[in-house]
Formats: sequence, C-alpha cells, structure tokens
Amino acid sequence: MKLSPILEKYRQRVEESLKEYFESCSGPDHLIEAMSYSLFAGGKRIRPVLLLATSRLFARESVDPMPAACAFEFIHTYSLIHDDLPAIDNDDLRRGRPTSHIQFGEAQAILAGDGLLTEAFGLMSRFYCGTDDMAVVDGIAELAVAAGSAGMVGGQVLDIVNTGNNIDQNELEHVHRLKTGALIRAAVRCGAILGHADPEELESLTRYAEQIGLAFQVADDILDVVGTRERLGKSAGKDLQQGKTTYASLMGIENSKTYLMQLTEQAKTELDKFGEKAEPLRAIASFIAGSILQAEN
Amino acid sequence: MKLSPILEKYRQRVEESLKEYFESCSGPDHLIEAMSYSLFAGGKRIRPVLLLATSRLFARESVDPMPAACAFEFIHTYSLIHDDLPAIDNDDLRRGRPTSHIQFGEAQAILAGDGLLTEAFGLMSRFYCGTDDMAVVDGIAELAVAAGSAGMVGGQVLDIVNTGNNIDQNELEHVHRLKTGALIRAAVRCGAILGHADPEELESLTRYAEQIGLAFQVADDILDVVGTRERLGKSAGKDLQQGKTTYASLMGIENSKTYLMQLTEQAKTELDKFGEKAEPLRAIASFIAGSILQAEN
Repeated sequence: MKLSPILEKYRQRVEESLKEYFESCSGPDHLIEAMSYSLFAGGKRIRPVLLLATSRLFARESVDPMPAACAFEFIHTYSLIHDDLPAIDNDDLRRGRPTSHIQFGEAQAILAGDGLLTEAFGLMSRFYCGTDDMAVVDGIAELAVAAGSAGMVGGQVLDIVNTGNNIDQNELEHVHRLKTGALIRAAVRCGAILGHADPEELESLTRYAEQIGLAFQVADDILDVVGTRERLGKSAGKDLQQGKTTYASLMGIENSKTYLMQLTEQAKTELDKFGEKAEPLRAIASFIAGSILQAEN
Repeated sequence: MKLSPILEKYRQRVEESLKEYFESCSGPDHLIEAMSYSLFAGGKRIRPVLLLATSRLFARESVDPMPAACAFEFIHTYSLIHDDLPAIDNDDLRRGRPTSHIQFGEAQAILAGDGLLTEAFGLMSRFYCGTDDMAVVDGIAELAVAAGSAGMVGGQVLDIVNTGNNIDQNELEHVHRLKTGALIRAAVRCGAILGHADPEELESLTRYAEQIGLAFQVADDILDVVGTRERLGKSAGKDLQQGKTTYASLMGIENSKTYLMQLTEQAKTELDKFGEKAEPLRAIASFIAGSILQAEN
C-alpha cells in the first residue's frame, strides 16, 4: 500500500538521512554490505516517520530529531535480521528479497544485526555530542528500554515460548505490546521528549502510540491470512503453520477488522488537542487500517 | 590468576553493582535467566575495573562512573555469547560452564546477547537521566563506536574472514585492535571522559589502553597454546584447530612473551604523569603480563 503524499515526503527525508548517517558507520566491507542490504531494502520507515511527525507538534524542539528517528529504523532492521535466523523464525524471504542469513550466511547475519543494534545507539549519541539539551539522554533511555529485555527482545522470547500453546487475548496483547508495540510507542514518545512535551501531551501521545501499535499487529495478523507472498514480500500463512495464536485465529477475520477500526479511531481521538498539526499522525493511523483494504483488492 | 588486592576490591564493587543494576532490567523469566547466567559466570571484570581505575585519576569527576563501567561488562558478556554460537566460533565451554546456546538453546542465546547489548545502553542512559553533565553523551558515543561496526563487531567479522588465511603481523594487529582492543581502549577513555580529562591526559591514557589491549591479546594467544582447558575455563588449542593466525603461530611462544613484556612496560610509561594515583592502572598492566607466568606454574 502506498503512503499518503504527506507521509511519503517524510519517508523520503528519512531515506536520505539514513543514507547519510549510514555513510558515517565505517567497518569491514563484508559487514557494511550486509548491514546496508537489510537497511536499504525499501521499508515504509513507519517508526522514524512517527518520531518526526510527533516532534513536529512542538515548536519547542531544540535538537534535530532525525538522528533519533533513524536510530529507530536501525533497531527495527536489526530485529528483522535476527528474527529471521534459522534458530528463531527461520524465514527465507523479507521485503521481497532473500533474508540476510540466506544472502550472507548465518554468522554475517548475526553480526550485521549486532552492528545495526549498536550503531543505533551510535547515532543517538555521536550526532548529539556537544548539545546541552539533556532530553537526548532521556531519548536514548526511551529507545533502550523499548528495545531491550522489558520490550522488544522480551516480546520475542515470549513469542517463542508461547508458540504451539493456546493463549488468550490478554496474553496475546501482552506479547505484542512488547514485541512490536514497545518500539512504536517509544518512537512517538522519543519525538515528544525531544520536543519537550509537557506531561499531559506526553500522556495523550503515549496512548495514541499504544493504540496504533496494537492496530499494527492486528493488521499484520489479518494480512498473514488474507495476503499473498508476492504482495507481502515475505512468507504468508506462517502464523498458522507455526501454530501461533493470532487475532485472526482468536477472533476471526471479520471481528479482527472491526477491532482494528476501533483501535484506529481511538488513536485519532487522542490527537484532538493537537489540531491541524497532528494531521501526519492521523494519516499514519489511517494508513495502518487501510493496508488491509489494499491487500484484498 | 588472582587479582592483586587493590584490583580485587574494584572487582568486588563492580560485582555488587552489576547485581544491583541487573535487578533493574525486567523481562520474561526465560530471558532474564539466560542473561544472568552469562553475566554472573565469574569474569575478572577487567573492562569495568579499567574504567573505574581511570576515572579515579580525576578529582573533577562529576557523575558516578559505575553505570558506565557496568555497561562495558554487559557489552563484553553479550559478545562472548554471540561469539560462542554454532554459526560463529561454535564453542561449548566458557568460564568453566556450558556456553549459553548449550544451556538454553540457540534462539535464547541470540536473544540473551541482544538483551545484554541493548541493556548496556539502557544503563548508560537510564542512570544518567537528569544529570546536566553532557560528558555522558560523549561516553555513550565512545562505547557505541568501540562496540560497533568500526570496532568489536567489525573485528569479529574480520576474524571470520581471515580464518584459514595466512595474514601478517600488521593485519593480525588490525583485527585485534578492533576485536578486543577497541572495547578496552573505550573503557579507559570513557573513564577519562566522565572525569573531564584534558586532551593531553586523554591522549596518554588512550596510548596506555592501546598497549594493554594488545598485550591482552598476545597473552590470550600464548595461553591458548600453553594453557589447559581446566585452567582456562574454556577450550584450549582452538586457534590452531581453527587455522587462526596468532602471535604464537607468527612469532613463536618465546618472542610472544618478550613482545608482551615490552607492551606492558610501554603502557606503564604512559602513566608516569599521573603518579601514585595510577597504581591500579599499573596493577592491571602487570596482571595481564603475569597471567602467563601463572598458567605455566
């Protein structure tokens, strides 16, 4: 599905900055090639776009949010490389191309992931050296907590532990809050923190992010059933095959769609106080919901 | 080999702080158990001790160096877990115990490594939120650059690429500067940066760190030949078996020992200007050289 023109503009800025920052990461050719292969495979850059669109709400912004935005994409990309590994999800296709370990071998894939994970924090610190805005340290903490054992990595462990077991909707949402929700939530919060949002603004934006994070996962579960390998650029039907509990398996496709629309509307409600400026954030919520309709046509 | 009493005191403080900080890392039990297993396997904690012993040189120290010190041990531990993986060094013994993937399976080992790597930056940011000392951001950058593609991860890639090839001493030193040297150098530099060292002091300490980093690797190569599995707590003779070029294979055991002693003496020379206060840093240099004599008795 195509991004709306306003989001596409953000995505292009992110794409250019990713290239620029990636050039500042040096290392052996083998490693740089493997890192680059996964980073520039054409993702939608939703997390950096979220961060930039959030920081735009605040005139008080004092540091350039772009290094932080790109750091989130580095983290997201590393997580895809490691998740695809034979020992974890054992997937051979990602964004329409062979996964990293298929292309470069397992050792290089592990190390390319480690490199991207580490360089994410490199971006968050190198490009903010010399600033006197300590919100930067809070932003780094936000990313680390969301990506770490209490967030994304923890969610991945729970996902593995739960595979093959029947779990209920509460447990399912707990896994997703960690596995995909935490990083989306942190991208929005980091944009707000760098913009020096007040506590009430941060609270509303956090709720917005939690709703769209969940919507993202519901949409992904639906797409795994109704999508095709060609359209998704990754294997379809994997969840069922791996015995994973999903929204689709738990509440059926139709109810999952209704739930997705509810989450999207709730998320938009949280943006009311920000008026016109929040239009890009509304567009992201619509994009997530719209991705389903697109896949069916 | 035993640490000298002064270093042992540092090590114990690090050990206590690691426990304390690790308790602040939450996550699923499976993950926390695997992270804890490797983190508390009884290492010498050389990197954190180096950082603390360096920051002690400066009365100007303004933030507590302990979170940064422990972050270096988190990074070092993650690197051991990932290096031991079947796809990389395929090792089954580490610090006298089964390696992480033997104990917990490959998926958990990969994720425990990812968790420790991420939480290292969590420590470096969470515990410095609210400070107004921007040296913290420089310290984070120092760690990220040393651990990333231009440092440790890059060195690991070169080590894999070079295995089975004949390389000369220059190439060998380049690999080691990245693979083990960079993190040791950064631990010293981070201690100096947090202590607001002046450029000249930072320069001397950087040279000290580069010499002991190299000494560390020369000692490790010698020990791989003269040590035993029981004494090392890891497999001995692996380098030869894997066709790796080492100082031992390149210049022989006796010349390697001479080189090690030279490096140690050069390192100590860099500390002259710091007088009595640098005693712990001198003790670390002696410890590295001494570990060889110990292994032969």
